[in-house]
Amino acid sequence: MSTTVPVVERVLSANDAVAAEVRARLDGLGIYCVNLMASPGAGKTSLIERTVAALKGEIPIGMINGDTSAAAFDAERGQTAGAAAVHVNTGGKCHLEASMVRDALALLPLERIRLLLVENVGNLVCPMSWKLGAHANVLISSVAEGDDKPYKYPKMYAGVDVLVLNKIDLLPHVDFDRGRFLRGVEALNAGLRSFELSCRTGEGLEAWLEWLREQTRRAR
Amino acid sequence: MSTTVPVVERVLSANDAVAAEVRARLDGLGIYCVNLMASPGAGKTSLIERTVAALKGEIPIGMINGDTSAAAFDAERGQTAGAAAVHVNTGGKCHLEASMVRDALALLPLERIRLLLVENVGNLVCPMSWKLGAHANVLISSVAEGDDKPYKYPKMYAGVDVLVLNKIDLLPHVDFDRGRFLRGVEALNAGLRSFELSCRTGEGLEAWLEWLREQTRRAR
Repeated sequence: MSTTVPVVERVLSANDAVAAEVRARLDGLGIYCVNLMASPGAGKTSLIERTVAALKGEIPIGMINGDTSAAAFDAERGQTAGAAAVHVNTGGKCHLEASMVRDALALLPLERIRLLLVENVGNLVCPMSWKLGAHANVLISSVAEGDDKPYKYPKMYAGVDVLVLNKIDLLPHVDFDRGRFLRGVEALNAGLRSFELSCRTGEGLEAWLEWLREQTRRAR
Repeated sequence: MSTTVPVVERVLSANDAVAAEVRARLDGLGIYCVNLMASPGAGKTSLIERTVAALKGEIPIGMINGDTSAAAFDAERGQTAGAAAVHVNTGGKCHLEASMVRDALALLPLERIRLLLVENVGNLVCPMSWKLGAHANVLISSVAEGDDKPYKYPKMYAGVDVLVLNKIDLLPHVDFDRGRFLRGVEALNAGLRSFELSCRTGEGLEAWLEWLREQTRRAR
């Protein structure tokens, strides 16, 4: 079910209206939706794979994967793991837009889905400006990216609802000052709900899964 | 000398004309210019720090650092290492434009510089569309990002003149299939000049420095 959705130019205010429309649709269906944002290689697709595999048989999951090209590798990874996946080609744009999500919804078996994972384009700048109608905006950071990222991308860190710090298995091998990173996060987004985990080893995943279970339950 | 350069809206064709202007200016001055592109956390600033420190007293270096905000951390790191650095606030844009480089040149002691390192905004999508007038477009990848990146960002990998694969010290600790990565690169950009190195340990840096020395010599 990997399908390319056509893209149209829209301005931000028009986008917000469509995002509200998407949200209303999801709420009507009782689907909890998460917008996953990160820089390339932080682990968006790996987290989706892990999540889908872990919740299989428990929560039916849909996935919308935004990519700047027609290459549908990530959607295929989500699909292989067990999600109903739709690939969205943004046509070179560095973010998803609400209209792309709306159009992708038409290709998903919504009546069977309880949790929708939207994988945004790998980018720490543009995606934050475009509301998608998701219930939670989640930023995935990786310890391999360095502890300076909250200071470099304040708009992203200030705007998200949840933070996932991935690749903690690499902590012994990189110069990552966890204190400096967390101080930056706290200054921008006090009390931000955060998960520290490793998609590679599975460490810390359970807390993330439990949070998703809880949100999905509440959305019914 | 960390300074914010004002940003104006320009279209791509107008951008190309300014890029040609920048290039002519650099050629007239005998300055070799490199445009460094990468996703956030791949090591652009670390490579600049290492390069500036290693070539200190040998090649006078200027640095133009593009960031989406007024935060000038990276420009300061370059300056501390010994470069004449100018910080460019792109005003939220996810790429540098030729006009930003042109305006930044006015703030650099060009008569004293032989090598100009331009650090683009951390992004694998937008920067490739905007020529800056640099002599070489360099992509910095990190093994921590995963071996699928050439397949995910073909436009970037196909369009660059040089590839730096950074963080090779992490190879024993990540699932990075070097063969898969290099096959992807070769399919998109056959014979691409590549350097594999670690800014953390210094391994492999010498070949990169030697290449920069050679290019800088030729530009005189």
